[in-house]
Amino acid sequence: MSVKKSKLKIIPLGGLEQIGMNITAFEYEDDIVVVDCGIAFPEDEMLGIDLVIPDVTYLKRNAAKVRGFMLTHGHEDHIGALPYVLKEINVPVYGTRLTIGLVENKLKEHNILKSTTRNCVSPGDTIEFSKNIKIECIGTNHSISDALALAIHTPAGIVVHSGDFKIDYTPIHGKPIDLQKFAELGKKGVLLLMADSTNAERKGYTMSESSVGKAFDEIFSETLENRIIVTTFASNVDRVQQIVNSAEKFNRKVVIEGRSMVNVCTTAMELGYLKVPDGMMIGADEMINHDPSQIVIITTGSQGEPMAALSRIASSTHRKIQIQKGDKVILSSKAIPGNEKTVSRVINDLFRKGADVIFDYAHVSGHACQEELKILHKLVSPKFFIPVHGEYRHLKKHAELAEHMGMKNEDIFILSSGDVLEVDEDSAAVTGRVPVSQILVDGLGVGDVGNIVLRDRQKLSQEGLIIVVITLKKTTGEVLAGPDIVSRGFVYVRESGDLMVEAKEVVKGALNNCTKRNINDWSKIKNVVKEELNEFLWQQIKRSPMILPIIMEV
Amino acid sequence: MSVKKSKLKIIPLGGLEQIGMNITAFEYEDDIVVVDCGIAFPEDEMLGIDLVIPDVTYLKRNAAKVRGFMLTHGHEDHIGALPYVLKEINVPVYGTRLTIGLVENKLKEHNILKSTTRNCVSPGDTIEFSKNIKIECIGTNHSISDALALAIHTPAGIVVHSGDFKIDYTPIHGKPIDLQKFAELGKKGVLLLMADSTNAERKGYTMSESSVGKAFDEIFSETLENRIIVTTFASNVDRVQQIVNSAEKFNRKVVIEGRSMVNVCTTAMELGYLKVPDGMMIGADEMINHDPSQIVIITTGSQGEPMAALSRIASSTHRKIQIQKGDKVILSSKAIPGNEKTVSRVINDLFRKGADVIFDYAHVSGHACQEELKILHKLVSPKFFIPVHGEYRHLKKHAELAEHMGMKNEDIFILSSGDVLEVDEDSAAVTGRVPVSQILVDGLGVGDVGNIVLRDRQKLSQEGLIIVVITLKKTTGEVLAGPDIVSRGFVYVRESGDLMVEAKEVVKGALNNCTKRNINDWSKIKNVVKEELNEFLWQQIKRSPMILPIIMEV
Repeated sequence: MSVKKSKLKIIPLGGLEQIGMNITAFEYEDDIVVVDCGIAFPEDEMLGIDLVIPDVTYLKRNAAKVRGFMLTHGHEDHIGALPYVLKEINVPVYGTRLTIGLVENKLKEHNILKSTTRNCVSPGDTIEFSKNIKIECIGTNHSISDALALAIHTPAGIVVHSGDFKIDYTPIHGKPIDLQKFAELGKKGVLLLMADSTNAERKGYTMSESSVGKAFDEIFSETLENRIIVTTFASNVDRVQQIVNSAEKFNRKVVIEGRSMVNVCTTAMELGYLKVPDGMMIGADEMINHDPSQIVIITTGSQGEPMAALSRIASSTHRKIQIQKGDKVILSSKAIPGNEKTVSRVINDLFRKGADVIFDYAHVSGHACQEELKILHKLVSPKFFIPVHGEYRHLKKHAELAEHMGMKNEDIFILSSGDVLEVDEDSAAVTGRVPVSQILVDGLGVGDVGNIVLRDRQKLSQEGLIIVVITLKKTTGEVLAGPDIVSRGFVYVRESGDLMVEAKEVVKGALNNCTKRNINDWSKIKNVVKEELNEFLWQQIKRSPMILPIIMEV
Repeated sequence: MSVKKSKLKIIPLGGLEQIGMNITAFEYEDDIVVVDCGIAFPEDEMLGIDLVIPDVTYLKRNAAKVRGFMLTHGHEDHIGALPYVLKEINVPVYGTRLTIGLVENKLKEHNILKSTTRNCVSPGDTIEFSKNIKIECIGTNHSISDALALAIHTPAGIVVHSGDFKIDYTPIHGKPIDLQKFAELGKKGVLLLMADSTNAERKGYTMSESSVGKAFDEIFSETLENRIIVTTFASNVDRVQQIVNSAEKFNRKVVIEGRSMVNVCTTAMELGYLKVPDGMMIGADEMINHDPSQIVIITTGSQGEPMAALSRIASSTHRKIQIQKGDKVILSSKAIPGNEKTVSRVINDLFRKGADVIFDYAHVSGHACQEELKILHKLVSPKFFIPVHGEYRHLKKHAELAEHMGMKNEDIFILSSGDVLEVDEDSAAVTGRVPVSQILVDGLGVGDVGNIVLRDRQKLSQEGLIIVVITLKKTTGEVLAGPDIVSRGFVYVRESGDLMVEAKEVVKGALNNCTKRNINDWSKIKNVVKEELNEFLWQQIKRSPMILPIIMEV
């Protein structure tokens, strides 16, 4: 008698509509394993928000089932929310050595290092989370070392999850992506593939990370007299290694600047992912002892972040480093969509100060382009496919690529966060939804800034504010003091004396109207004041600030 | 006896540090002619600002000298500030027919059409602004028809100003750029060249506008059953013409949507710059009478502007047009730096609604790339050079290009707004500065929003606001009502009940402290309240909202 097997549930809890914030639950009967736990960076309209973390209500409701977090690699959009989420669901965390090292830095900051179980794994390892869920780690290549793809073995079949990946036959650290493993799994039969879609719009191949080293060598060989400053993502340890390699070849000392760059490099050196020859690294204050031609500064700020080292250097507000005429500044990066303007501003500032700036040159992507995606699809030959990692447009293009390669449209699923996909060898379908949302983090507050607060910030930022204060006599409703008008972010008061005087008259008129019409209810009085003042200001200067009437009673 | 001739003064009043806002004064003895008068779009940190216009203090101080405005073409960054500036300095305006047509639309909106003298000119015309300043109009190519370069003839020599330009041998409307004229001037001897630097970082050539028509034909020929929606800059009349041409070939009716698209097309058709066959144009409400395969919608919103037609169509908030499954949407444009994210959002929304979106394909730039710039430099062979139009990085690259072609570094001037360059055949040098600034326009207010207001808006947008109101007894300073606390954009009150209750206690404590320490001065009391509350909130949740204590007296 054959027992009907259960289906595997795949539930993205973030990361599809909301870029970044990768977190996906794999649930088989009484077991859940969660792959990644990332943050997202706030959208432009999320004013004042520091970061966005996923809503793990579903995991909390099923806390007894959750066996652990399996991390693919150490980027913020894959590990950044862990310290917040572990405070709610304390389960073991698995990842490669560098990934766990970076996670540990975070756990320390949040004071939960000791209370968290961390497990280091290596490519080739299989982790038995439960009888029903075993995860095999597959080495890949990405813009951070030690990235993994996963083969998730369940009674319903094997799911291959690519993580963020590219195919690099000549990586800097570690081995080329384990293509044979993908082939072996494909041969065995893969139920479902989930694969990185970030570069699905780009034709061809992504160049090897090692090609950037050649670009550095070239620039270094042409820059014999001046200082070199290179900026890149702190987490791209292989990139930093190549800068160090070029520095070694051309006899330059290396200065590491910027908090996250120092942190990552320290961890990477401790763990052996970054090798710097003895005596090569010097502090910024030691630069005066060396000729500019003997120095490379490696620093943060490749996205033009206003508080990062490069921006502060460019705007002459860095404590230790000033631009010297002739400095060669290399942006070993590409502007993430939305950052183009800030990056450009930094480039302009650097040129203005006399630096020579190189951009759009010494950089390669960490994600697979179309031809690489095709290799993965062909090797794995899955029954079902979910494009992941990327905006909707990228998921769509990746779906088209799979269809173009022969998959049936109905076997491809573009999921939204919260969708529950149930799958076994017979079928796959979205069968339900779990609650998901974005939780905004502002300072120490997690989730206490919601839509109303954001809407108010939006309004205040665009139009400013007018406060009208009135003190009334409790017994008679007579005005004892005010109306006083205070404005912020509206018009500069000295320039708008008359306008504010007139506004006060409008408020007085509104109060008189209330008295005449026997309106005593505070909220009604406030509304009348608000409406009449709003109308007046719109007529006068076509603006509508937030108006806050406040009534005090004595 | 030879009389010493005067020098020509060239004074950019905007447009170098501040992108857009092109306006340059050419002054020879008692005559000033101003080339262009554009707006800039607000920077991200200019919260709530609609647009930025130049400071024309210098022109107002020398109003008697100003002979007129000479416009190179009809883009906003070259004509947009005219209605504001003409209200301050009423002088004649010169430009080609399309340029003047677009200016007239603006003057009508500002009710100053009748009071403004407009003069239509054509390529080849020479305008005698005064005995000493004559301007010869040279036809060029750009992403708007009827663009001009200028040869400014003065006793000090000839200045060639390229305007925004590209070299298009097969333009859609009008003639290819008059290269022979540049050669003729160069042969005669040009004192100074000012040339467009927008694409100075790009190698090679910009493709002809007519190549976009081929792309449209190709897409139209592959889209036989579905509706086509094309979005582009409203001012790119030649682009619209090519969409109309493809529509005609493939038997489609044309719907024009979006306020600025309707305005520009109406003007362009009246003036003969846009030719639409009779009966081809239909209203959006007539679409129901036609099969989707018979319709092209031409609309605005190629930069993802939230209020433009395409964004509203993509988010299903457009009154007349909804996306139908299979709609082919062509973004005939490239995202301007800073707009990438909003453009991407629109693309995602369109894909999600079932449209097929084509981007980064049917578009060419309106600006000359490096090889074209070299042609201009070689033909004109100036003695001195000022790179114009572009960010500092582009000006710098253009300067390097000129140097690479053989100019001496000391003959090239990267100017800042307000610099006064004095030039004659012997020498050129920056000899002084005139006052310049950016004037912010918000609603009907021109210049009444300054740094203080912007700083307040910034603070309010990031951190929100807490208002503390207290009513005191005049005679004794006794608290009669309050403290009441109102917050906006800080935390949502229901979620933060305790925090606000505690905050109230902190304020009460601060007031008690004032009483104990005999502090009666209002401004001191306010400061104590502010400081203690600020300290409390930072300790509690690491945020520092704007705190506004208001004291009423009865």
